[in-house]
Amino acid sequence: MVGGGQLARMTQPAAIALGVRFTVLAGSTDEAAARAVPSSMVADEKSLDDLRAFAAGCDVLTFDHEQVPFGHLRTLAAEGVVVRPGPDALLHAQDKGVMRSRLTRVGIPVPRYAVVSAPDDVRAFAAELVGSREAAPPADGSDLAVPVVLKTTRGGYDGKGVWVVTSLAHAGEPFRAGAPVLAEELVAFRRELSAVVARSPSGQAVAYPVVESVQRDGVCVEVVAPAPGLPDDLAVEAQRIALTVAVELDVVGVLAVELFETVDGRILVNELAMRPHNTGHWTIDGAVTSQFENHLRAVLDLPLGSPAALAPYAVMVNVLGGDAPDVYFAYRHCMARDPALKIHWYGKELRPGRKVGHVTVCGDDVDDLRDRARHAAAHLRGDIDE
Amino acid sequence: MVGGGQLARMTQPAAIALGVRFTVLAGSTDEAAARAVPSSMVADEKSLDDLRAFAAGCDVLTFDHEQVPFGHLRTLAAEGVVVRPGPDALLHAQDKGVMRSRLTRVGIPVPRYAVVSAPDDVRAFAAELVGSREAAPPADGSDLAVPVVLKTTRGGYDGKGVWVVTSLAHAGEPFRAGAPVLAEELVAFRRELSAVVARSPSGQAVAYPVVESVQRDGVCVEVVAPAPGLPDDLAVEAQRIALTVAVELDVVGVLAVELFETVDGRILVNELAMRPHNTGHWTIDGAVTSQFENHLRAVLDLPLGSPAALAPYAVMVNVLGGDAPDVYFAYRHCMARDPALKIHWYGKELRPGRKVGHVTVCGDDVDDLRDRARHAAAHLRGDIDE
Repeated sequence: MVGGGQLARMTQPAAIALGVRFTVLAGSTDEAAARAVPSSMVADEKSLDDLRAFAAGCDVLTFDHEQVPFGHLRTLAAEGVVVRPGPDALLHAQDKGVMRSRLTRVGIPVPRYAVVSAPDDVRAFAAELVGSREAAPPADGSDLAVPVVLKTTRGGYDGKGVWVVTSLAHAGEPFRAGAPVLAEELVAFRRELSAVVARSPSGQAVAYPVVESVQRDGVCVEVVAPAPGLPDDLAVEAQRIALTVAVELDVVGVLAVELFETVDGRILVNELAMRPHNTGHWTIDGAVTSQFENHLRAVLDLPLGSPAALAPYAVMVNVLGGDAPDVYFAYRHCMARDPALKIHWYGKELRPGRKVGHVTVCGDDVDDLRDRARHAAAHLRGDIDE
Repeated sequence: MVGGGQLARMTQPAAIALGVRFTVLAGSTDEAAARAVPSSMVADEKSLDDLRAFAAGCDVLTFDHEQVPFGHLRTLAAEGVVVRPGPDALLHAQDKGVMRSRLTRVGIPVPRYAVVSAPDDVRAFAAELVGSREAAPPADGSDLAVPVVLKTTRGGYDGKGVWVVTSLAHAGEPFRAGAPVLAEELVAFRRELSAVVARSPSGQAVAYPVVESVQRDGVCVEVVAPAPGLPDDLAVEAQRIALTVAVELDVVGVLAVELFETVDGRILVNELAMRPHNTGHWTIDGAVTSQFENHLRAVLDLPLGSPAALAPYAVMVNVLGGDAPDVYFAYRHCMARDPALKIHWYGKELRPGRKVGHVTVCGDDVDDLRDRARHAAAHLRGDIDE
């Protein structure tokens, strides 16, 4: 697995159980996965030579993120390296413009969008949105017909590379990287959902229960599985969309499809990730087969494991680096207060806002689970008033 | 953790989740745990210098077996190494004579026994048993009043070091090792049970549901959690015994107490192990907190996790090395046939009779679970007619 982060780290327990020889290419020895996986290789994942050297020791190459250069992946695949998911699938997780265009062509519902190359195009796009849809009147100081979401087509994550602009004066920044920019309608959504599926090269696929994902400042902070009160038809629609994307894009491994549940009851695709995903972490403790195990099974073309939930609800809350004066005290407090709490600590240096761990609780009463998980995550962050 | 076997290997996933820096002292780089744990040390666990060097890098020293020389443990503890469980507790898991005598003194029910030093003592012990209890008449060729169980007081495991003798002619072998021999009554038991508990240095303890353990040729082959049909009073008695042993012997970490449920409805202690135990493997997939996580929490004096079961029943069956012509085929067959099957593969070379993995299934219908787990284990062993 290329990448030394928490996703690779959490894949190691699944590899141990399956008896799979698992190794990672990490950027340094103190990355989360390098501390958990024997004979991990420290190298530069942007270097074709380093990737080649790493791949030489592997039967299958897979990834814990989308940042490996597409050209390198194409070269490796052409040289006979088994790359899963394949470069042509991964491109859709690397480039939001390519993704939107492809999904539209295969009939998957997405927000209205345009790939634009200059701020002036944003004004035209906003006008076009108003032409076809109702919109609130521009706020004071706005010179766009409606607010527009701008995203760099490449390289964004965790809210980075996303802007909501109401004025042309603020539309310049996304273009500074020099890459095309994706302009999108600001979707009026009830909440965000995520549909995680796994697919093997032979075409077998499984779909996990559709979850509700709560974002703050563009970062996933909380996941409830399954999404409370989601009508069956929307849950099925979300799973159908994710499975269709997996087939159409020939995804191998785990695919997470982040979705909007709109105020008018539609499901639209927001983002794709072709790897284990934050919205699937609850599966470690809450499902028969974790997303990490199914990712391994899929990329190794082994039969997939059951995605069934173990309890009526699971709630996962991310632990972000904060200013806990004594994290170890909070860690013990959380264990003592809630013996059923599952703590996952990534072994990373604590920096404010950084994802350093997560907690999960499973049970019947979703409000109780939410309270317990939020309390623990707040304590671990150092926010003991919460 | 001293020891490179599957118990250390299965501790690594728990260490990863807890964010604990876990390392093992293994006998070679191809042992089960050495393949799963970074920076494991290859050294001789019988060498005091090697143990010292390993302990120098650890905050707490613990074990995946009972074979580390008692004298070395005493020396390390005297030198300030934090050894958990401590040498004085571990001695009771290393020496069956010391264990029987201590348990008897603190009122724990055990089979009738004597520590004997020569075959002639066995005859006297057999006569003594008959004097106080009813017994079947000697079988043809027997010159003992009743059959007697002989066990080497040290070093036995998985049925090795245990003999059932009906004749003095066969009583010599156990004495050949030169160590004292434990002579015991042959207990008429309905089945074998196991009570697994965990205890921390500060005295907190948790008890897992009492399980039924099925042995074949002295090797645990199958565990059903909880023991089907076990009356509540006997389950409570078994847990009470295990918790009492943990307190009386000052055990820190996981303690497994193997028990007989006698035909006349009593509970007797058979064996002790002070580490994660084969009869607790089901907890990885079937309990809120696995025995491996609770062993780590206990030896690190962290609050213990809930031992509650996740489903009404869990069945675990060991996979023994066999003559499967194509283990990889069987592995895929089992995954495809039963997507809810949890496979645990130890990464060990396959040798006939060796424990090379286990499978667990959880659910409501214990007969169905038993069939599925047995089928999978049989296939993986190569016994496809079963």
